[in-house]
Amino acid sequence: MRRLFYAGVLAEEIEITGGDAHHLAHVMRAQAGDEIVVADVDGRAARMTITAIDRDAVHLRLVEYVASEERTRTEVILVQALLKGEKMDFVVQKAVELGASALYPLKTEHVVVRYDAKKAAAKAARWQKIADEAAKQCGRRALMRVAEVTALSALLQNAELFDTPDTAVIFCYESEGTQSARAVLRSIEARRIVLIVGAEGGFSPVEAEHIRAAGAQSVSLGQLILRAETAAVTALAVTQYELGNFDL
Amino acid sequence: MRRLFYAGVLAEEIEITGGDAHHLAHVMRAQAGDEIVVADVDGRAARMTITAIDRDAVHLRLVEYVASEERTRTEVILVQALLKGEKMDFVVQKAVELGASALYPLKTEHVVVRYDAKKAAAKAARWQKIADEAAKQCGRRALMRVAEVTALSALLQNAELFDTPDTAVIFCYESEGTQSARAVLRSIEARRIVLIVGAEGGFSPVEAEHIRAAGAQSVSLGQLILRAETAAVTALAVTQYELGNFDL
Repeated sequence: MRRLFYAGVLAEEIEITGGDAHHLAHVMRAQAGDEIVVADVDGRAARMTITAIDRDAVHLRLVEYVASEERTRTEVILVQALLKGEKMDFVVQKAVELGASALYPLKTEHVVVRYDAKKAAAKAARWQKIADEAAKQCGRRALMRVAEVTALSALLQNAELFDTPDTAVIFCYESEGTQSARAVLRSIEARRIVLIVGAEGGFSPVEAEHIRAAGAQSVSLGQLILRAETAAVTALAVTQYELGNFDL
Repeated sequence: MRRLFYAGVLAEEIEITGGDAHHLAHVMRAQAGDEIVVADVDGRAARMTITAIDRDAVHLRLVEYVASEERTRTEVILVQALLKGEKMDFVVQKAVELGASALYPLKTEHVVVRYDAKKAAAKAARWQKIADEAAKQCGRRALMRVAEVTALSALLQNAELFDTPDTAVIFCYESEGTQSARAVLRSIEARRIVLIVGAEGGFSPVEAEHIRAAGAQSVSLGQLILRAETAAVTALAVTQYELGNFDL
């Protein structure tokens, strides 16, 4: 069922306006009589019927409250090496749609783009904005946090990600020749999974050693060469799938 | 390990030139001493060592022949409702990277773009070109076939896809509220899986009924609203994952 985030508190009758109304009526092509699930700022969710669609608003009537989608789930965090302009924007948007809770932009040896501190901060702010917009479009209540651009050495010392109980770190490594993502994901019992995905040129062997030494398990996403943005989306999709986070 | 397609026959020593050499040296950042897997036009594959990288060529020496990646696998076919320009190009490229064997561009009620016969043929030729280019980049030997643009009614009568033994048709339907992709994919014993993914506005209820009546199982990709291109990539990724096609 279609889901929508409502920037207010659910009531018997509510009215959606602005961009959300347009999205619902014209992109999602909702019609009077359709049912959708609406989540509100308090974290409640309800099935609602569309009673009317005006030029400026979509009118909804409550059918019943339902369990919110924000039930306790294994959290998935994406660490993504910096990609060129549009591709990074793309990965940020897709990570939101695929339910990542946070994204850490990462500086590695093979990263092509170079940002000074000011530019890096502006980029992170921009990605957060893209993420917030994507959350609205995909009906997500909890926003995805975009962290500051981090160097690999600093990331590996981040105690929130490494050496934390109940957290498993999975390193998507193009040169991994033994462990498949499936074998590793199926063996994991963790409450948080951190996925590390490289830039266009992947990781250097030295970087790979450091990542593994910090406790990450390296995995392969198969024998075909995936572009960086494909690897990110694929890693997120199969992880959420394996965790059952796509289940109803 | 990195993989590359070589448009010749493997020998003790071979030389890669042109765009492939550039891709290997500058995009994949291969260096002398690295090992890569090279597949040839005869369907053989071998591990090879890079002995030297010149300005125009990468020189390789045979280490050993290996089993080709083209072992018998469950084949995955994508039926994708037409998306606006760039997004369709994107899905074509990603379908190749994710190992789809064929892509059927589909005309549905909610498709926004409208092509006359001439334009549709030109588009299909363009997508085939994008697919062939992507196959080269990702080290795939077998090309992905792009079919002609098909109306839904014609597709549902295509005996190659429907009512064929050993073929399961999975319909990614945004309004499916019961069956998860995981439950259905895990229950399938087929040698071919056909995935049907909608356009930005999804499918109309009437279309959904016709698709189901033709024998497709409708599934949900979770509670978040995925953009059309995200749904396509996610469906392909989780299907290949579940089939073990990403395993080494």
